[in-house]
Amino acid sequence: MLKTPPTLLHNKATAQDAEEIRKLVGAGKVFYGNTISEDYARDELAVDTAFPDILVEPETTEEVAAVIRYANERVIPVIPRGMGTGLCGGAVASRGGIMISTVRMNKILEIDQECLMATVQPGVILMDFQKEVEKLGLFYPPEPGEKSATVGGNVATNAGGMRAVKYGVTRDYVRGLEVVLPDGQVTEIHGKLAKSSSGYSLMHLMIGSEGTLGFITKIVVRLLPLPRKKVSLLVPFPSLAKAIGAVPKVLTSRTSPTAIEFMQTDVIHVWEKAMGKRFPHATAPAYLLLQFDGNSMAELEAVYEKAAEVCLAAGALDVLIADTGDRQASLWEARSTFLEAMKTIGQVELADAVVPPHLIPEFVTYCDSLSEKHGVKVWTYGHAGDGNCHIHILREKGMEEEKWRKTLPAVMDDIFRKAHELGGQVSGEHGIGEAKRKYFLKYGGEVNIELMRRIKSCLDPKGIMNPGKVV
Amino acid sequence: MLKTPPTLLHNKATAQDAEEIRKLVGAGKVFYGNTISEDYARDELAVDTAFPDILVEPETTEEVAAVIRYANERVIPVIPRGMGTGLCGGAVASRGGIMISTVRMNKILEIDQECLMATVQPGVILMDFQKEVEKLGLFYPPEPGEKSATVGGNVATNAGGMRAVKYGVTRDYVRGLEVVLPDGQVTEIHGKLAKSSSGYSLMHLMIGSEGTLGFITKIVVRLLPLPRKKVSLLVPFPSLAKAIGAVPKVLTSRTSPTAIEFMQTDVIHVWEKAMGKRFPHATAPAYLLLQFDGNSMAELEAVYEKAAEVCLAAGALDVLIADTGDRQASLWEARSTFLEAMKTIGQVELADAVVPPHLIPEFVTYCDSLSEKHGVKVWTYGHAGDGNCHIHILREKGMEEEKWRKTLPAVMDDIFRKAHELGGQVSGEHGIGEAKRKYFLKYGGEVNIELMRRIKSCLDPKGIMNPGKVV
Repeated sequence: MLKTPPTLLHNKATAQDAEEIRKLVGAGKVFYGNTISEDYARDELAVDTAFPDILVEPETTEEVAAVIRYANERVIPVIPRGMGTGLCGGAVASRGGIMISTVRMNKILEIDQECLMATVQPGVILMDFQKEVEKLGLFYPPEPGEKSATVGGNVATNAGGMRAVKYGVTRDYVRGLEVVLPDGQVTEIHGKLAKSSSGYSLMHLMIGSEGTLGFITKIVVRLLPLPRKKVSLLVPFPSLAKAIGAVPKVLTSRTSPTAIEFMQTDVIHVWEKAMGKRFPHATAPAYLLLQFDGNSMAELEAVYEKAAEVCLAAGALDVLIADTGDRQASLWEARSTFLEAMKTIGQVELADAVVPPHLIPEFVTYCDSLSEKHGVKVWTYGHAGDGNCHIHILREKGMEEEKWRKTLPAVMDDIFRKAHELGGQVSGEHGIGEAKRKYFLKYGGEVNIELMRRIKSCLDPKGIMNPGKVV
Repeated sequence: MLKTPPTLLHNKATAQDAEEIRKLVGAGKVFYGNTISEDYARDELAVDTAFPDILVEPETTEEVAAVIRYANERVIPVIPRGMGTGLCGGAVASRGGIMISTVRMNKILEIDQECLMATVQPGVILMDFQKEVEKLGLFYPPEPGEKSATVGGNVATNAGGMRAVKYGVTRDYVRGLEVVLPDGQVTEIHGKLAKSSSGYSLMHLMIGSEGTLGFITKIVVRLLPLPRKKVSLLVPFPSLAKAIGAVPKVLTSRTSPTAIEFMQTDVIHVWEKAMGKRFPHATAPAYLLLQFDGNSMAELEAVYEKAAEVCLAAGALDVLIADTGDRQASLWEARSTFLEAMKTIGQVELADAVVPPHLIPEFVTYCDSLSEKHGVKVWTYGHAGDGNCHIHILREKGMEEEKWRKTLPAVMDDIFRKAHELGGQVSGEHGIGEAKRKYFLKYGGEVNIELMRRIKSCLDPKGIMNPGKVV
């Protein structure tokens, strides 16, 4: 394998550059130095702040292209930015440069009810987009926990979420992209098309590339008809192994679950304490939370009764059915605020390793054992249906900075090494960004990393797009 | 955009090379010169034959790697080959070299019923694989017309098929690959994992790359539970526009069709004559053929009755229900032997352009008009649910070689230009290979083609993998 050519050293963006960029996109859309809000210096989990030199809020593809062309000529880093809800520092300007925010590129351009496809700008908020399509009886299934994320950010990280079991991840819904390449050229990739076998899939290469290969300015996604009904089941088990052991049985039972989450009691207790609320059941060691959707209650009843039977046969202690909208909402809201709850105890760092689904018990048992080994709390829950675990490492109030700085990388390293041994990968849905980069370089496979680096350097020879991220 | 560096000139493989390769893989697996069967000199549609210099039938990944390493050192072309059922010359050794057949790499390595995934060698025949998983109550949905194709070939071309409407294409089922890279290194990409956001998707880059970026030696695919029941509807319409106009209505009717095919009467008449059989209905100008699957007849009845209502409301003349296995089999067998039927009239060349689904009537009407414009028969049918049309250009017996040689490229050019104007692409599921390359280079988008070429040259700097194909 040939070695990757070195990338050029980057230049800092100056006040003069800000002036030049104002000429390209208009003065009101360019911020320099201390006029940049601190919100743009971090993401959802990052501790260290890093300000971009310049923040630009373009409105059109042409404006994005003009800024990137300018940056490319001067070898200045470009950092694409959505709502900053990422969990790996992927949208933080760790090497300075020009941050391009999609905040003004937030239009739904079309919802084509005939083709069941929508075209959006990258800055559209996921939650807003889902509401709009649902008004028309349509459905955009990707459902990452963070609904205030942008669709562009979801595409850049290939965001997953709860419904991946039945509906897949963001990648499975993207049909076309408009991308500004690192040299400022604009290209349309794929389009309002259901399929294609026409050359290499540049579209799939861009999806999940975390802004390191180009800046996404337009997205075509497919839609589905909106299922009319949902039912959720909360299923207590006597052990995590029993809970996970039930998952393949549910998956092969022809009940087609939308979501299968697993959780252990300790996390539920943290949540109850933090939120001052009661979880519907909190005395069993482990739980599965399942959801089913369909078009009639009759259809759904047959399905969830079958699933309940399967769970009971697999050792479940009970099956709690939530069939009203309110009850379901409170269950899933609890699930999606676990992370928030943990933050009340201390600083949380998060790994989202993915392993083959049937190996979750081995993986989670191992992660649990790290609490004792390293003297920090390690809590895991996640997507049982697809093998994606969220492992939380907690710096409780009072832990000294030095201990934390030593412990965290050691725990992370153990987690990712174990995931790797089990045939897993560093990230199931959050991405690599900056925070997971060193683990990815270690456990992502030497040959594959080298291939990715060569692709990066052939698409972005000056290395200006989101430098220091991914590879 | 930097220009692609030129690739090296290839060397011919000699008798001496065959000797050396025999030392690497064993004498019985290497054929040279006129011991190579003519089957290996063409694919399903190619007219011109081109023999490889050497044919190798390795049994293991290590053997494939050894041969490719050898070829790379000597700059000899390598042509991966499955069953040769391709339709674009993608697996033909048009520049000589070493053809590596997957014929001996035909094992199903594992069917993991817990993870709902299977691991296969690339030479496994699709039909055989589907039968094996179905014995276990499982289901591998990709359903290209050619069931004697290999799974490896399906992955290399991202094969689609009838069921793409509900279940997607081959790409949607691949979970992991083992690939021998152009320099002979072996890499595992992804794995028995349901999802990943860990760096660029090398997996999706390899899928559909038609053997130009590496040689696939192992494939992990996901499986679904096998639906227990199927029902098909044959729906006559007074016009193609009415038929296609019904498609979005069916797609949004929450009936979740597995397949929606369209066809016009002239093709049915050709089929009836060629096969000496009667199609169940042949007096309407256009037809939709729909399929639904599910787990009980009660569930299916509700669904197909709804779909029938929707079709009738959209102007259907009638709805013929095929609910027995035999009746359905004969309908779908007819559909899948249209191509064979056309071959009885003369030589057939095939384009499989894909357009936005709602633009099918405009596209098909245009393709129909080419019959008169160019004085050849042009017949179109295909996948109404996903916008993928199969356009057949017929050289009837008696048409002179010279006229055919002039007419065919002109018709093809018109077809692909129109598809491009409508926002479509050159191939929906057959691939580019050699036959569609010149149209792809013309209509695939200059910037995108250049990106693909750069990726090709950074992964395969000597250009040995399947040269002259795709880009």
